[in-house]
Amino acid sequence: MRESGAGHEGGPVDQRLTGDLPVASAAAAADYVGDDDTLVVSGFGSVGDPKAVPEALAASDRDLSLTVVSGGSVGPPIEVDLAEAGGLARRLPFTNKAATRDRINAGEIAFHDPHVARMGERVRTGALVDADTAVVEAIAVGEDWLVPATSIGQTPAYVAAADRLVVELNRAHPLALQRFHDVYRPGLPPDRDPIPLSAPGERIGDPRVRFDPETLVAVVETDRRDATYEFRDPTAADEAVAATLRDFLAAEMERNPALADRLTLQFGVGSLGNALMSAVADLDRGDRDLVYFGEVIQDGLLDLLDAGELASASATSLALSADGQDRLFADPGRYADDVTLRPASVSNRAALVDRFGVVAINSALEVDLSGNVNSTHIDGRRLVGGVGGSGDFNRNALVSITALPAAVDDRSRIVPHTPHVDHTEHDVDVIVTDHGVADLRGKGPTERAEALVENCAAPVHRESLRDYLDGARERGGHVPFDPGSAFDP
Amino acid sequence: MRESGAGHEGGPVDQRLTGDLPVASAAAAADYVGDDDTLVVSGFGSVGDPKAVPEALAASDRDLSLTVVSGGSVGPPIEVDLAEAGGLARRLPFTNKAATRDRINAGEIAFHDPHVARMGERVRTGALVDADTAVVEAIAVGEDWLVPATSIGQTPAYVAAADRLVVELNRAHPLALQRFHDVYRPGLPPDRDPIPLSAPGERIGDPRVRFDPETLVAVVETDRRDATYEFRDPTAADEAVAATLRDFLAAEMERNPALADRLTLQFGVGSLGNALMSAVADLDRGDRDLVYFGEVIQDGLLDLLDAGELASASATSLALSADGQDRLFADPGRYADDVTLRPASVSNRAALVDRFGVVAINSALEVDLSGNVNSTHIDGRRLVGGVGGSGDFNRNALVSITALPAAVDDRSRIVPHTPHVDHTEHDVDVIVTDHGVADLRGKGPTERAEALVENCAAPVHRESLRDYLDGARERGGHVPFDPGSAFDP
Repeated sequence: MRESGAGHEGGPVDQRLTGDLPVASAAAAADYVGDDDTLVVSGFGSVGDPKAVPEALAASDRDLSLTVVSGGSVGPPIEVDLAEAGGLARRLPFTNKAATRDRINAGEIAFHDPHVARMGERVRTGALVDADTAVVEAIAVGEDWLVPATSIGQTPAYVAAADRLVVELNRAHPLALQRFHDVYRPGLPPDRDPIPLSAPGERIGDPRVRFDPETLVAVVETDRRDATYEFRDPTAADEAVAATLRDFLAAEMERNPALADRLTLQFGVGSLGNALMSAVADLDRGDRDLVYFGEVIQDGLLDLLDAGELASASATSLALSADGQDRLFADPGRYADDVTLRPASVSNRAALVDRFGVVAINSALEVDLSGNVNSTHIDGRRLVGGVGGSGDFNRNALVSITALPAAVDDRSRIVPHTPHVDHTEHDVDVIVTDHGVADLRGKGPTERAEALVENCAAPVHRESLRDYLDGARERGGHVPFDPGSAFDP
Repeated sequence: MRESGAGHEGGPVDQRLTGDLPVASAAAAADYVGDDDTLVVSGFGSVGDPKAVPEALAASDRDLSLTVVSGGSVGPPIEVDLAEAGGLARRLPFTNKAATRDRINAGEIAFHDPHVARMGERVRTGALVDADTAVVEAIAVGEDWLVPATSIGQTPAYVAAADRLVVELNRAHPLALQRFHDVYRPGLPPDRDPIPLSAPGERIGDPRVRFDPETLVAVVETDRRDATYEFRDPTAADEAVAATLRDFLAAEMERNPALADRLTLQFGVGSLGNALMSAVADLDRGDRDLVYFGEVIQDGLLDLLDAGELASASATSLALSADGQDRLFADPGRYADDVTLRPASVSNRAALVDRFGVVAINSALEVDLSGNVNSTHIDGRRLVGGVGGSGDFNRNALVSITALPAAVDDRSRIVPHTPHVDHTEHDVDVIVTDHGVADLRGKGPTERAEALVENCAAPVHRESLRDYLDGARERGGHVPFDPGSAFDP
């Protein structure tokens, strides 16, 4: 098998089904899945996930104990239907829907949460799981290739790793979606080549994901849209965070020589991320190009493209609202030159985030006075969602920014000490809230704590944070820390 | 200025001083340093650091308030003499000597601890500090170049970032040391090229670090060896950790297709790391080459080279004992073909650790039941040492292994909950102790905790860890966590 795409070999795909393929019903395809199989599935940003086969598995009366490994978040067929049917025993690497999350928190589903960039190679090398069956959505399929749907995620690696392949051919998405796809599959170590992408908007692959034709056991035809994102309207706090972010970015562009010619951004997934994108539209960038190099395309990016503000956008998923999908599908050609979808192994890859000088902007549940960021767990125990790509970008960014409201429902999100750390003080550069900025770079722990309290916390919470800090400092040592009151509300 | 070396331009360097250079005494050179300057200095692995100028600063009666930024650890002139003279106000990115550490813990010196791989570009972009004066050790110097001494560290980036340059020309090291050096300086974002290194032992630069001749203000001549490492003899626990590691590596080689042809290792700095290298000599690797791609060359690697076990070794520092330095300096040609020293921006770079499939083996102070690793602080407060390169390797490794004795002085190093996290559960694959292995990959938090308690903890500590785990699990949620007893001894 080829290790990567090489140019637009074979030209555009103009029919849905090419060749003599094993078309089957969803129920028949589900029979290829063993009761305790490890399924590796398409899907990222809750779109492009398989739908009919997971639903058929959920509707069966089989006693299933499946491990389901996706690229990122997937939709209700897996995270709701299959979870509620009790079919999920193990889930990697991301989850964000209540039906699955509640079962993880109840100890019924084991959950492991690695960074998403490296899932492809970790599955291919058998480091995390031994992949039995790949179930992936496509908009077109041939005897040894498929064209992914609204996300690429880890599909290229997962179809290479699995013993069997089931393809869901979804006719609801236009074939023109292929114009967004740039499938390049990095090789395995050792001594693999660098990824030959020299600019964020460049193309180095083709629209097809290749697979071993011997593995294809079923093609299931479907015709249904993704369960798309619903973004809430921005709150006043969101708008204030966006204003703080805009001011910080303006100052950083003046200061940082690596931002002299271009501002390359990544935004985390979600309503706050979407709202923050609007801050960028109002930013005075001078002659600088604005470029997006992230993991998902959200509606806010389409707005920036429409306004002529954005030179290019690279991601692995079209995580749009229903309106956003309608807008894109109505005229794919309008966006296809500027928007590229890549495998998550490429969109999120450390080497590229580093080379392109990405300014990463991700949200969090809470930030502690040392600058540790918790993105995933409440009270150190209860899972809210996975770490996703936030670590891939924070760790390798030119500047890593964590943006969040200072308080939610009167509870401060700037806390003395977080019991769950997803991003350490070593990886967190700048905290932005609706009250201000704490630039933690080069600062020691006490200086960090003071900047977070005085600049970022809500004024109403500052006194109790100061009290904690004063008490902790009296105990001595490099990091102000008092185990006796670290977790006081 | 050139952004990188390009071949062995100019051929070997055959004299110490070339051209009309501003030779000065250490005291005169120290006068170029302002009282509250930011000094960016050579040094990594406690060798190759400047000596005479820091000592002259320490001996002066000036009221100094210096920020000192190194590549990694440096020797006594900065960490002891300058610290004891009260001259250090701020220190980045690593420290491991009592005189400086005690003052950091007393709040007298501010300390910030970023990952070392990216220090060069962060200093060049002014993200952490504004570099005033570079003070670097060399074995030869010309009008616009120098040849580093026993470490390269971040010297290429730091001399490019600083307004002024002071070179300490050290005649104690043989000129043949240049044969180890491969200086390539990555460009700045955006759109910099990938580093063109296609194998761990390849060479892509030359022995010279280039600088702007306008910045050179003084050359100070010295003739003294580094204050080298002293390794303690391996303890029984070290030997048992090594035996566990050897068994794990043997099993992983059988299992992991990315290790079919070659085993590429990195070991952390220190006595345990040095002892673990001996485990590798006894490993049955079949036809596989053994390669080292890490940050320091320790004595154990010289043993492997002498035994013909090691194909090549790449690092940024010769962190040897005095005996090891004697061995190397007595016959540099014996090792020069197989050992390469690179800038830390290359030796530790995420993209290369990833491409070469490095198996990273680093020690730690403690590991908690979620798999979080604390490498730097005792009791969440007191600094022991910086994170160094452990994050650069753990985060990007094919397999990241944390190796440590299960207990030290009857205190378990497997703890319920660590108050200081340097490496999160997302980055930690395998824990190895003198009692066994916990392979955390693909496991949920309770499974991880059980593997750590039953396989890795010392038998005498298992019952109390089980008690904690049982109590924490009763509280419910994804991660077993009980704030009431999380920090109980």
